[in-house]
Amino acid sequence: MTDVAAFSFDKLVIFGFGLIGGSLARALRERSDATGKRTVIGVGRSAASSARALELGVIDRAVSLNDDAALRDALDGADFVLLAAPVAQTQPLLERIAPFLDANTIVTDAGSTKADVVAAARAALGERRVGQFVPGHPIAGREASGPDAALPDLYVNRNVVLCPLPENTPHAVERVAAMWRATGACVREMEPAQHDRVLASVSHLPHVLSFALVEQILNSPDADLKFSFAAGGFRDFTRIAASSPEMWRDVCVANRVALLEELDDYTAVLARLRAAIEAGDGAALEAVFARSREARSEWQEHRAADAVPTGRNVSN
Amino acid sequence: MTDVAAFSFDKLVIFGFGLIGGSLARALRERSDATGKRTVIGVGRSAASSARALELGVIDRAVSLNDDAALRDALDGADFVLLAAPVAQTQPLLERIAPFLDANTIVTDAGSTKADVVAAARAALGERRVGQFVPGHPIAGREASGPDAALPDLYVNRNVVLCPLPENTPHAVERVAAMWRATGACVREMEPAQHDRVLASVSHLPHVLSFALVEQILNSPDADLKFSFAAGGFRDFTRIAASSPEMWRDVCVANRVALLEELDDYTAVLARLRAAIEAGDGAALEAVFARSREARSEWQEHRAADAVPTGRNVSN
Repeated sequence: MTDVAAFSFDKLVIFGFGLIGGSLARALRERSDATGKRTVIGVGRSAASSARALELGVIDRAVSLNDDAALRDALDGADFVLLAAPVAQTQPLLERIAPFLDANTIVTDAGSTKADVVAAARAALGERRVGQFVPGHPIAGREASGPDAALPDLYVNRNVVLCPLPENTPHAVERVAAMWRATGACVREMEPAQHDRVLASVSHLPHVLSFALVEQILNSPDADLKFSFAAGGFRDFTRIAASSPEMWRDVCVANRVALLEELDDYTAVLARLRAAIEAGDGAALEAVFARSREARSEWQEHRAADAVPTGRNVSN
Repeated sequence: MTDVAAFSFDKLVIFGFGLIGGSLARALRERSDATGKRTVIGVGRSAASSARALELGVIDRAVSLNDDAALRDALDGADFVLLAAPVAQTQPLLERIAPFLDANTIVTDAGSTKADVVAAARAALGERRVGQFVPGHPIAGREASGPDAALPDLYVNRNVVLCPLPENTPHAVERVAAMWRATGACVREMEPAQHDRVLASVSHLPHVLSFALVEQILNSPDADLKFSFAAGGFRDFTRIAASSPEMWRDVCVANRVALLEELDDYTAVLARLRAAIEAGDGAALEAVFARSREARSEWQEHRAADAVPTGRNVSN
């Protein structure tokens, strides 16, 4: 077991305190070493969601992104900054905080794509300061969003991928890894391109396919009748179609190269299945279905050990 | 509320006593009027599964399909026959039982497709006896199969579609409807072609899409790595890829005309999304995703009233 007591912090500034940022804040408040001051400052876009996050105790203090003095004060002496906003905001957010950033502050993110985030960090922070930025991605989520969706144990037994830059010090990488381990997560390292290819396949593509099915039904002349006969298969297949449109818009655009490759590859698989269906080739269909069933069942068994706490619909 | 006490029976013969047939047997045993004898005879293909169904009390007696004398005896005086085997077996099964069928026995089925089942019934039973056959489809399931998967409340609040034939008497249709209502299901009537079109869209297509995703990952060079990073989105999207290969092979072949139409329509939606991704057209993507999210959330709310008992992964 990881020694979760090994991580303490005094001041964390999170940009975005919904599901992802809010869950990190709640996890660290409950699970990090109490020797740190554990102050969490939230920088948000909406007054309503700041008020809600304060009310829920997700953050200790809310700061407006547009308030220079408050932002300078928030970032002063911060151990950590976490960006937990849709990935297209990475570069503008880093540009916004760069003037106020202490040399000892470690910045990380929770974006679902990594190659674009690395490029954004290089552009915003420049050669001199990009070493302060350790790119990361906690592979956990739910289709719900906002501060009310934040859960202290969202990351327990989840994978968190770090994509360290050559400019990162081992200390900076280890501090970010320790922060995530303190939430109960398992930390793994990958190259950004590999991360983006893997996630395009097992996360981004299924989201697009799920959104597409609901869109197709909506556009059909008998949509209401179809929805009225939709049952458990539809429910599970489309659960992720209730995910944040803004977040998934950004993911699709940011990771379009890898996603298009996976999408084209998937379309080719579908074309093969289509040919088998049209030909009434039951043997070919059964062979594919049996292979898939076996792989899916094996995957499920391997995961049984990392059982997610119940009552959740974990997405991503 | 429906008066479930209104249904009683003396003898039910089920062909296939796995998830679907076994759940009906268990539901009727618990929920039908106790004035009937409620004998359930199972006709199966495997000795092991017959033994298991007997052990679990799903059926009272097991009969081999190949045993003429036993089959004749089983069907003698039966109120109901239910076919709950993969749909391609409908015609051979009906041909097998036709010589032994009492004139007062009502035959129904649980097949996921209906136009092909109607054709099979006409071919097997002929004009004179096809009126004894009331086509049906309980829209409920789980990815698990076999007698161990059978649950007495599988059909509670589920839709059961009946597609009555012009040859059916109102009495026969009403008796089958009463049988399903006794399980807690809601009975609705449709034309076979309409049923097949609706189910192709909300059930058959998602199953094919889900199997296809697992197949695609399996065929990729980094399958293990991808599976190791697959999380909750993948889990829900592919739950139905653990469904019975044999059943879904038959469904795809039996309903290929409607399924191909839906598949082609879906491929066209995907092509539109692909173009938006390639163009980096975030606004177009967000519009589709937001529409889908809203429709999916609304669908979920409408269904909140028919909450499924927990601990299930209802498929179909």
